[in-house]
Amino acid sequence: MRIGGRHYRTIFLHEDGWSVQVIDQTLLPFVFELRRLASVEAIAHAISAMTVRGAPLIGVTAAYGLALAVRAAPDDQSLRHAHRLLAATRPTAVNLRWALDRMLAAVAPHPPSERCERAYAEAAAMADEDASHCAAIGRHGLALVEAAARRAGSRPVSILTHCNAGWLACVDWGTALAPVYAAHDAGIPVHVYVDETRPRNQGASLTLFELTAHGVPCTLVTDNAGGHLMQRGAVDLCLVGSDRTTRRGDVANKIGTYLKALAARDNGVPFHVALPGASIDWTLEDGAAIPIENRSEREVTHVTGRGVGGDVIEVVIAPEGTRAANPAFDVTPARLVTSLVTERGIAHASEAGLVALYPEHAKQAGLRPAETAS
Amino acid sequence: MRIGGRHYRTIFLHEDGWSVQVIDQTLLPFVFELRRLASVEAIAHAISAMTVRGAPLIGVTAAYGLALAVRAAPDDQSLRHAHRLLAATRPTAVNLRWALDRMLAAVAPHPPSERCERAYAEAAAMADEDASHCAAIGRHGLALVEAAARRAGSRPVSILTHCNAGWLACVDWGTALAPVYAAHDAGIPVHVYVDETRPRNQGASLTLFELTAHGVPCTLVTDNAGGHLMQRGAVDLCLVGSDRTTRRGDVANKIGTYLKALAARDNGVPFHVALPGASIDWTLEDGAAIPIENRSEREVTHVTGRGVGGDVIEVVIAPEGTRAANPAFDVTPARLVTSLVTERGIAHASEAGLVALYPEHAKQAGLRPAETAS
Repeated sequence: MRIGGRHYRTIFLHEDGWSVQVIDQTLLPFVFELRRLASVEAIAHAISAMTVRGAPLIGVTAAYGLALAVRAAPDDQSLRHAHRLLAATRPTAVNLRWALDRMLAAVAPHPPSERCERAYAEAAAMADEDASHCAAIGRHGLALVEAAARRAGSRPVSILTHCNAGWLACVDWGTALAPVYAAHDAGIPVHVYVDETRPRNQGASLTLFELTAHGVPCTLVTDNAGGHLMQRGAVDLCLVGSDRTTRRGDVANKIGTYLKALAARDNGVPFHVALPGASIDWTLEDGAAIPIENRSEREVTHVTGRGVGGDVIEVVIAPEGTRAANPAFDVTPARLVTSLVTERGIAHASEAGLVALYPEHAKQAGLRPAETAS
Repeated sequence: MRIGGRHYRTIFLHEDGWSVQVIDQTLLPFVFELRRLASVEAIAHAISAMTVRGAPLIGVTAAYGLALAVRAAPDDQSLRHAHRLLAATRPTAVNLRWALDRMLAAVAPHPPSERCERAYAEAAAMADEDASHCAAIGRHGLALVEAAARRAGSRPVSILTHCNAGWLACVDWGTALAPVYAAHDAGIPVHVYVDETRPRNQGASLTLFELTAHGVPCTLVTDNAGGHLMQRGAVDLCLVGSDRTTRRGDVANKIGTYLKALAARDNGVPFHVALPGASIDWTLEDGAAIPIENRSEREVTHVTGRGVGGDVIEVVIAPEGTRAANPAFDVTPARLVTSLVTERGIAHASEAGLVALYPEHAKQAGLRPAETAS
C-alpha cells in the first residue's frame, strides 16, 4: 500500500538488517509512525498491546519475534521460551500458533550456528507468502464484487465490512478489503460502509484510513446501524475477515461479526468471509470450542481520539466504578456464511468445501479426498 | 427515582409555578444538573438537542411546551405555531404527535382566557399518567422476570437492555427498566448487561447511572457483544423500549435493537418490548413505513466523555474528512418480538394481541373486537 507516495508493508526489516519495523497502529489514523522492535520481548508486547493486530500480521510478527530470539540466543531453551512467550500474547488468532510452529519446524532441526539465518529466511518467506496470499484472495473475491456489480446496474456496489481486515491487518493488501481494492483498481465503482467496531474502533481508525488513502469511497457507521442498512436494501454484500476458522467453516472474528451475519441472513444479503488458509484450525470442528479472548474493561469504559488541541487523548464514557465485560471475538456459525474466500479460491463454508481446496488436510478433517467433491 | 436521597421526576414545574425543570441528560453521568425551560422555543431546543429524550418523556415535555406557548399567547395562531414547532423536533417517536394532539384537543375548544389553566392541567395529568403507566408496566413485566428467575434457579436473572428505557426516558420508573426495578425491589436477584448504545452512548451514560443509583448490579458491554453473550447462555431475557410500535407489533427503537432481536431469536432468548399504549401508532401496519430520523454525522465521528482533567469534552475518533451515516432508529419486525409489555398487560406482538388490550382501537385496526380473542 502507498502512504504519502511511498510503498509500505506493515512489517519489514530495519535498515540494520536484523531489527523489525512496524507501523504503530494504536496511533492511527492521527499519526503515522514506525516502531522499531529489537527483541522478542518487544515483539510480544507489540502484539498484546495491539501495536500490530490482525490475524495474518500477528502471525508474521510473531515469526520475526522468534527470529529475534534466535539471534539473541540460538539454543533450544531460548527457542522454547520465545515460543511460549509469543503464543501467550493473543489466544484467539490461530495464525499465531501456526506461525510459531512453522518457525520451530524450520529452525529447530538445524545446529544453533545456522538457526539465525534460517529463522530470518523463514520469517521473510512467511511475509512474502502472506502478501501473495492476500493478493490472491483479492483476485478470487473480485468475482463476488463483479457479480454484485452486475446486479447493481449503474450504481456503485455497496459493501459492509466490520473491524479492519485490510492491509493493516496483514502484510499487504488485506483479506476482506483485498477484493475491494481489486474491484476499485479494476474500475468497478464500490462504496464501503465501515462499522466503527467498538471497543477499539479499528473500523473508524484503520479501515477508514486505508480506504481513504486508496481513494475508495466509504462511510462510517456505528456497529448498531448495519441491520437497518440491510433492511433498507443499502448493502449488496458483507465482507469480513477471520481470526480463526474451524474445519467446518465456523468463523471467529471481531466481536459483533455474528450480529451482522444474522442481519445478512434475515435480509438475503450475501455474507462472505475472507481468510488465508493459515487461519483455518483443522483441529477444531465446532466454533464454540474456540477460546475467546477477554480484554480489559478499560477498552470499553474509555475511548481514544483526538481532542480539540490536536493531541490523542482518552475520555471515560461511563460513571465511576462501572464494571464492563469485553469479549474481543464472537463466532459466526458456518450456516450464516455464504462463502469463504481463500488464496486458493472460494469455498462453501463446510468441511467438504474447505477440504476441496485444501486436500492435504483431508485426513486431519476425517474425510477421504474423494468425498470432498460432494 | 431517588438521586442523593431526594425523589425526582425527570420533568416537573419550577417553584415559580409555570416554567419547567428538567434533568439535563446530555451532562449525565458526570454532572446532575437541572435546566429551567421557560418558553416553547426552549422546550423545542431541549427535545431536538436531546437535553431530554426517550419517547414518553419527549411527549410530556412537548405537552409542557404547548402549555408555555399558551401562557405566552393563548390565541389559535400561537397554538398552531407551537404544535408545528414541537412536532418537527423528532420524527420517529409517535408519543410526540400523540401528546400534542391530546393537548390541542384539551385546550382548543375553550376560550383563550381559560386555555392556560387547561393546558397546565392536561400536561400535569399526562405526566402523572405516564408515571402510573410505567409503574403498571413494571408490575406486569415483573411476571416475566419471575418466570426467568424460576428457570435461573439460584443465580441472578441476567437481562440485556439496549439504550435507555428507564426513568430518564420517562417521567418516572421507565418502560424496559420498570420490571427490573420491580424485580429488584421484590428481592429477586437480577443483573443487567447494558449495551453502551452508540452513537450517543445512552446505555453507558444513562442506564448505568440509573441502575447504579438504584443499586441494581450491572455490566457495561459494547453493542457488538450481545450476540456472543446470548450464544454462551449469559442472557436470560432481553428487555427494551419502543419509540413507535405499529398496530401489528413492529417496533421502532434505538438503532441496533433489531440486531439484538435477531440474536435473541437465534439463541432462543425471550425478547420483550416494554411500551406505554401512547407509543402505539394505530395508523400504521408495517414498520417499514415508520420515518427513521437521520441525525448528524458528528454524533458518529465524535465521542463525549470525561477527560483526565475532569472536564466533559469531545474527541474525534475518525480521520479528517470522514463521512458518516447516522440513522437513529431501526425497526424490529413483530415476528422477532416475544411479547409487548404495556400498562394494560402483556400482549402478543400482533394486531390481535394489541387490540385485545386496546379494544377502543379495534375499529381503527380494521378488526372487530370479537376477532381479538383469537
